Amino acid sequence: MQIRPVRWDGDALVLIDQTQLPHRYVEVRYTDWRDVAQAIRQMVVRGAPAIGAAAACGLVLAAQSIPVAEMADFRAEWLRAADVFASTRPTAVNLFWAIERMKRVLHTCHTPESARRRLRQESEAILEEDVQANRAIGQHGQTLIPDGARILTHCNAGALATVGYGTALGVIRAAVEAGKKVHVYADETRPRLQGMQLTAWELVQEGIPVTVITDNMAGMLMRRGEIDVVVVGADRIAANGDVANKVGTYSVAVLAKFHGIPLYVAAPISTIDLSVADGSGIPIEERAPEEVTHIAGVRIAPEGVRVINPAFDVTPAELVQAIITEEGIARPPYTVSLAQMVAKRSGEVFGDGGTAG
Amino acid sequence: MQIRPVRWDGDALVLIDQTQLPHRYVEVRYTDWRDVAQAIRQMVVRGAPAIGAAAACGLVLAAQSIPVAEMADFRAEWLRAADVFASTRPTAVNLFWAIERMKRVLHTCHTPESARRRLRQESEAILEEDVQANRAIGQHGQTLIPDGARILTHCNAGALATVGYGTALGVIRAAVEAGKKVHVYADETRPRLQGMQLTAWELVQEGIPVTVITDNMAGMLMRRGEIDVVVVGADRIAANGDVANKVGTYSVAVLAKFHGIPLYVAAPISTIDLSVADGSGIPIEERAPEEVTHIAGVRIAPEGVRVINPAFDVTPAELVQAIITEEGIARPPYTVSLAQMVAKRSGEVFGDGGTAG
Repeated sequence: MQIRPVRWDGDALVLIDQTQLPHRYVEVRYTDWRDVAQAIRQMVVRGAPAIGAAAACGLVLAAQSIPVAEMADFRAEWLRAADVFASTRPTAVNLFWAIERMKRVLHTCHTPESARRRLRQESEAILEEDVQANRAIGQHGQTLIPDGARILTHCNAGALATVGYGTALGVIRAAVEAGKKVHVYADETRPRLQGMQLTAWELVQEGIPVTVITDNMAGMLMRRGEIDVVVVGADRIAANGDVANKVGTYSVAVLAKFHGIPLYVAAPISTIDLSVADGSGIPIEERAPEEVTHIAGVRIAPEGVRVINPAFDVTPAELVQAIITEEGIARPPYTVSLAQMVAKRSGEVFGDGGTAG
Repeated sequence: MQIRPVRWDGDALVLIDQTQLPHRYVEVRYTDWRDVAQAIRQMVVRGAPAIGAAAACGLVLAAQSIPVAEMADFRAEWLRAADVFASTRPTAVNLFWAIERMKRVLHTCHTPESARRRLRQESEAILEEDVQANRAIGQHGQTLIPDGARILTHCNAGALATVGYGTALGVIRAAVEAGKKVHVYADETRPRLQGMQLTAWELVQEGIPVTVITDNMAGMLMRRGEIDVVVVGADRIAANGDVANKVGTYSVAVLAKFHGIPLYVAAPISTIDLSVADGSGIPIEERAPEEVTHIAGVRIAPEGVRVINPAFDVTPAELVQAIITEEGIARPPYTVSLAQMVAKRSGEVFGDGGTAG
């Protein structure tokens, strides 16, 4: 079974409802762009690359629903929809990257009809490129995974977080496809349990050995010598290599550093934000307290207690051994290596001899 | 409201059912010692000092229920009950300390009648001494807490984990009683959520400001400079100062070290086990996987996934800034300072000029 959390089916966008996993596998069809924006907010679809892809497709639905009129009116209405998507979630930069990419296409179109057609084509390119990028990330990244490795991962940077194959889990899948034996330890990743409910589910589907741990067990396992390598995804990478990712990644990175275990970040170029100098410039989403105080709809917290719920944290570049992208493996100093990768990718997509997927 | 999780009411032992907190406050009366052993296993009562106290009281119930016969028969049957209590939970040494203390009393008794009376007296002494020890721990420990401190704690080392007042939370209570302002951050402490459900509940009762965080947020808060000090309890402390405590304590200790934040362990002398040279000799309880795969009776894990559930981990002495006991503050080298404290306490309890109680 191929996991495709964001895909077209005719004129409908189909998302896997990730809030129902692992208990039920449900696909939902969307034809109204506003429902797609809501799905992003409510984390029906989540994971930085998947959010970007879903927004791109949502903007196609928006273009379809706007009455064909003067191009200026069409454009203005479509840009209002783009603003709604841009307001859904603040941290994952892939969202803004995808919206910008769709805007660039819109601005080359002279009629609503061509805009609809070309936006749809662009969305399909984004979906296609994401899977290809993840396979390339996997190929590069698996060279860093020793045979027999016991790999810790945090949250879900798998097929479900992307258009398919995954970033961190793409590296693991590629290692398995290369014939290596691995064992994955998945942090359950409170509050929303993406490690327990998404990563473990994905790996069980494919028969890749996985053990779920509570987030607070990672240090103990490292001390016992039972973790060889850590691989995680990213929601935004600053120009200096600071990495915003699911809350708890920073704790894992400190623990890995303390135990001399390499931590690798796997992410497509679209996750790199050169406009942000370092992690202090990355906005961190604060989500509803109920995500912490309730589990599966059941209140677990006492009444009257205060909680905080930052969805992400920032891991400073010095705790990151390497950043794996579709263009190869970036090493420190990241200010140089990441800029080179972004330039290389831009050359391929937009340059003369481009080989954009 | 005074929280007394282990107390006598006439001939019945009364425990607060901690598995029902914070939703319901339920006291359960026990007259059958086997039910008390089961309550310890199922964590109706938990926390190292509270486990020891409950076992001591359970052994009084055992003495009451054994038919008065020849002292040799009585003793043999009572010792079988003691073995049952010793098998309930392996890590917290206070359990074995309490059982040994009750055994010493039994071995000085010549008739079942006197054994019943003297065991009951000894259990009352254990209860009384525990609260006094915690108040002394609080007095010593609060000197380490700056005014305005933001204090991180893990699991529940509060009144609920003891006979009253608490160890780590005793230090915090004493700081508040000394007029200091504090803010407590409580790790929720998966899998059983003692931080969320017990520590937060205790502190809300008393109006001490508390914010609950998921376990994986502690590093982020430390990096932001929002934690000044960490205070935790202990389930067993080895002769060299290695500390077994609720799983996740080790991760917190590494994070504290990395950020230059002091970590203090608060525990009564009965938690120190000089017979164990270092942490590698402390047995770590592995509990049922359902504690990880289910929350509030609801399955959260996918079918077919493997989990582990070690209830404790070991924090090496070099990550512990000081160990706070009722005899004062032990500093490295712990091999010397802990031995001195144990000797001092033994002198008080068993020595000529003893001031036990």
